[in-house]
Amino acid sequence: MNEPQRTRRPGGRSAKVAAAVHQAVTDLISERGYSGFTVGEIAARAGVADSSIYRRWGNLETLLADVTLNRLNAQSPMPDTGSLEGDLRTYAANVAREITGPDGLAVVRLAVALSGDGQEGSKAAEDIRAERMGQLQSMLDRARDRGEDAPDAYGVLDHILAPMYIRVLFGMVPLAPGYIDGLVDRLLLPQNGSGA
Amino acid sequence: MNEPQRTRRPGGRSAKVAAAVHQAVTDLISERGYSGFTVGEIAARAGVADSSIYRRWGNLETLLADVTLNRLNAQSPMPDTGSLEGDLRTYAANVAREITGPDGLAVVRLAVALSGDGQEGSKAAEDIRAERMGQLQSMLDRARDRGEDAPDAYGVLDHILAPMYIRVLFGMVPLAPGYIDGLVDRLLLPQNGSGA
Repeated sequence: MNEPQRTRRPGGRSAKVAAAVHQAVTDLISERGYSGFTVGEIAARAGVADSSIYRRWGNLETLLADVTLNRLNAQSPMPDTGSLEGDLRTYAANVAREITGPDGLAVVRLAVALSGDGQEGSKAAEDIRAERMGQLQSMLDRARDRGEDAPDAYGVLDHILAPMYIRVLFGMVPLAPGYIDGLVDRLLLPQNGSGA
Repeated sequence: MNEPQRTRRPGGRSAKVAAAVHQAVTDLISERGYSGFTVGEIAARAGVADSSIYRRWGNLETLLADVTLNRLNAQSPMPDTGSLEGDLRTYAANVAREITGPDGLAVVRLAVALSGDGQEGSKAAEDIRAERMGQLQSMLDRARDRGEDAPDAYGVLDHILAPMYIRVLFGMVPLAPGYIDGLVDRLLLPQNGSGA
């Protein structure tokens, strides 16, 4: 069109394409689940060319990962309650609500499926994880800056996220509030020189 | 043939069919991975009728789960070292070796995929889990009988198995020996009245 250069300008054509495509994917997911549609159908619904989607996202897996990450960020921003314990309890409860909600299993299964879908799928999954782990680490860094003895993001992954993910994947739901708080309690136990 | 009754006799025709089918599945998995073959191909290779497989296992997912459980049990019997700490360290190291081995990701993904494959898949996955959790609980019960302060099988699931499964699913491998021992150390920390 009348774009002098093919650069992405905030609020420009590129952002409009992204918004239309995200909306189309979100609608298709809610209508048909996570694996019930093609790039062609997304393009048709968003009113863009297939090639625009392939140029920007490369493949369907990366696009799904991008939409999923955006959804997670919108639904569950990192808490900032002023204390590590408060942040972790709020964060764990938010994640539990996400992954036990209507699309929760689909989201967890998407992340897991992406990891095995070859190079591009793995890259998309890795981007989701890197983004979320970075946000989580920022929350924990704030606690350290306040002088609190905070675990790192991998500790949260291993002892809060992993148990909840596996229980959802294995159908061991719902996740009771007492169970979720117990995971946080255990992560916050002092590590009295166990040599780790 | 000349079977007077259609009952399963140990060492009889039923056991021979099961052994031939298990061998055929194991061979096909190693040749083509976990999703590259049909019940018809298994039957042909095992020299039995398709209907024999459907009658006994119901569907491909249940058969895969049965073979997988047998493999896990053969490769990783529950340890009995005489101490809870020794048992847990050996168990965790065995599981880590299984799930980071050549077929490991496929096995973990099979268990996860089964959970979402509708009624029959879920039942098969549940059978695998119930069997393994029961074996694990027996190991922990032996520790309690010796007067040790053992966690229950769900604690092992949440804090040893889940972190390792998720790291394998997310491609965060290998699992270093120090990392695995750290999971055991953390599970064995005294729970000083955290109200759980």
